[in-house]
Amino acid sequence: MEKTIAVNAGSSTLKFKLFEMPSEKLISSGSIDRIGLGKSNISIKFNGKKFKDVQDVNDHSAAIKLMLDKLISLKIVKHYDEITGVGHRVVAGGEEFNDSVVVTDDVMKKLENLSELAPLHEPANILGIKAFKKILPNVINVAVFDTSFHHTIPEKNYLYGFPYKYYQKYGARKYGAHGTSYRYVSKRASKMLGKPLKDLKLIVMHIGAGASICAIDHGKSLDTSMGFTPLTGIMMATRSGDIDPSVVSFVMEKEHIKNPNDMINILNSKSGLAGVSGVSADMRELEKVMSHNHRAMLAREMFKNRIIRYVGQYIAEMNGVDAIVFTAGVGENDIGIRQEVTDKLSYFGIDVDPKKNHIRGQERDISSDDAKVKTLLIPTNEELMIVRDVERLKNASK
Amino acid sequence: MEKTIAVNAGSSTLKFKLFEMPSEKLISSGSIDRIGLGKSNISIKFNGKKFKDVQDVNDHSAAIKLMLDKLISLKIVKHYDEITGVGHRVVAGGEEFNDSVVVTDDVMKKLENLSELAPLHEPANILGIKAFKKILPNVINVAVFDTSFHHTIPEKNYLYGFPYKYYQKYGARKYGAHGTSYRYVSKRASKMLGKPLKDLKLIVMHIGAGASICAIDHGKSLDTSMGFTPLTGIMMATRSGDIDPSVVSFVMEKEHIKNPNDMINILNSKSGLAGVSGVSADMRELEKVMSHNHRAMLAREMFKNRIIRYVGQYIAEMNGVDAIVFTAGVGENDIGIRQEVTDKLSYFGIDVDPKKNHIRGQERDISSDDAKVKTLLIPTNEELMIVRDVERLKNASK
Repeated sequence: MEKTIAVNAGSSTLKFKLFEMPSEKLISSGSIDRIGLGKSNISIKFNGKKFKDVQDVNDHSAAIKLMLDKLISLKIVKHYDEITGVGHRVVAGGEEFNDSVVVTDDVMKKLENLSELAPLHEPANILGIKAFKKILPNVINVAVFDTSFHHTIPEKNYLYGFPYKYYQKYGARKYGAHGTSYRYVSKRASKMLGKPLKDLKLIVMHIGAGASICAIDHGKSLDTSMGFTPLTGIMMATRSGDIDPSVVSFVMEKEHIKNPNDMINILNSKSGLAGVSGVSADMRELEKVMSHNHRAMLAREMFKNRIIRYVGQYIAEMNGVDAIVFTAGVGENDIGIRQEVTDKLSYFGIDVDPKKNHIRGQERDISSDDAKVKTLLIPTNEELMIVRDVERLKNASK
Repeated sequence: MEKTIAVNAGSSTLKFKLFEMPSEKLISSGSIDRIGLGKSNISIKFNGKKFKDVQDVNDHSAAIKLMLDKLISLKIVKHYDEITGVGHRVVAGGEEFNDSVVVTDDVMKKLENLSELAPLHEPANILGIKAFKKILPNVINVAVFDTSFHHTIPEKNYLYGFPYKYYQKYGARKYGAHGTSYRYVSKRASKMLGKPLKDLKLIVMHIGAGASICAIDHGKSLDTSMGFTPLTGIMMATRSGDIDPSVVSFVMEKEHIKNPNDMINILNSKSGLAGVSGVSADMRELEKVMSHNHRAMLAREMFKNRIIRYVGQYIAEMNGVDAIVFTAGVGENDIGIRQEVTDKLSYFGIDVDPKKNHIRGQERDISSDDAKVKTLLIPTNEELMIVRDVERLKNASK
């Protein structure tokens, strides 16, 4: 059987899922961390079992070679030829890429030019593609962009209120993220609601460690909370979310931070739940201590508040809403957050049944019978979207 | 009769309104611009006439002396003794001032310490107070803060999602602005609606050259769109409104801007309607050309869009709304903006009657008969609130 890999290469990590196609059956998944940092943890799931190992892995090329070797040695695949397609999550597609694309030399150049839009992620994505092209030179590689779903956002929503020339000269605008998740989740929502996407106004809350919200108006992204980079929008595990630039420059002066990028790093990696609570970036840890730790409780309240703000904002922008959807780590698993957020949105006819909501990681309509606006829980599956895109583009290029 | 002056001292301007108290009758108003810059325009209205003059005015002390002299020479007041109170608009009250306050030496010191929260405005406000204290040493001076109305905002709303220590050490948080306007307008709205403020959920859109929106929940500010400074929130005449700090640092790199304050200046003075349109910071100018100038139209669309976003956000935060209110320059006078913004909010039961809306600068309920949520037009009157505070504190200190 033909197999397709979905790959997510971070700066020091590699995650993959291997699917049998076109059946879309998940065969194996795994990850390698600490690439280039020594003592990488290698973890592979297959047939209900988990295989673990620790090795030094010097670079992404070595990581991918190791991963493929493990697939062979664990007899998950017999030989490389079974792998007929590789889909790569790529964070930034800029204005260039409105859809997933087969990676040619020309595409590769464009990706390199886009690196400045996502300096933390894009270079790693590119390394992953290069490594696969080297090791499996005859296999199709497809870039699937986090941003491409958002190409329908109208300019009044994607432009910032600063001099227009910054957009013209440098592409300084909102690009958003989590597009692959939004594509998957909105399609599932359409199925669950029994209505075509073109007849639906949806708000999807993709809330994990990275978190964003999207207004999907008649199947198209109308607006999303992340901006030029994934720093802004709602508060996240370690990212600040929306913040006044004047308070940023004020803090820079006070803390004697000269380089704006150093401050952006703080806003990306030492802020959010972690920065406010001083306890943890992990919502589960905050919930353990919040009854007696004010800042843990506060961080959680702020997190909820920012979600509530954006849901209201997107109901206004769409001038209505048919359903709201929870997805990703916190959205799929945090019963309390779902209940408390929706309780605060009762004015809009949003109403969750506590019994139906008492569930984790399963697709379900958790609305009460009286709810005017549906609330859905839909576990996301970005990797499935990625391998579907590989399949689609493979067939199109035949 | 006793007279009270409301003073608004900017960095190079002085505006005043003189009221007879306690009748609250407006006697005269005026302004002096270009203080310290040579050839100041002096303008005073009295008895339906406008007196104009041009003189060099070196500093705020000279401006105030000149203003008082004009009041005498134009026979608006007979002698200084008639002026029994002066109220000063002060931009930043920090966490220190939850209410207006009689300016003592101690208060003066605190104001000076607060200057870093509003470096463009606070020093001018202080100069104004000092000048009055010198020229009218026996008259009560009251500081009325733009921020004090917002002292009820809960911490989950005023804190930013960055390291908590920045709040603890430096007071880096949301303070908001336009509080004096919100106080006035919410009281009038309560009267128009025939309900006490404690029973009302209001959203007030103070949209002029500076513009902000406030969620007034049971009479208390629950949240407001401006932040640490008046830079953020909705897009304004020359201010960017909300913007991703990562796009700000990206543009700084591209434009070789080393000093964050230089960039903040661009976001304050060369952005907003002016920056996007490249035409004008004045909505009326944009409306003249928008039929054939895309960027003028775009700037106006963005302006509307940001208002719509915040109204939705505040309906969500209050979990309901009884009335929305338009005030300040654009809000009071731009029939089209009012109509278009409310048309986009029809889902919430907001509905404006085009005939009732065909009005400028007058207090009126402009809702249609079917509207579930009222829309009010209320011209603001910050100066009246200021002199009322002077009166209240004068009586309290007797």
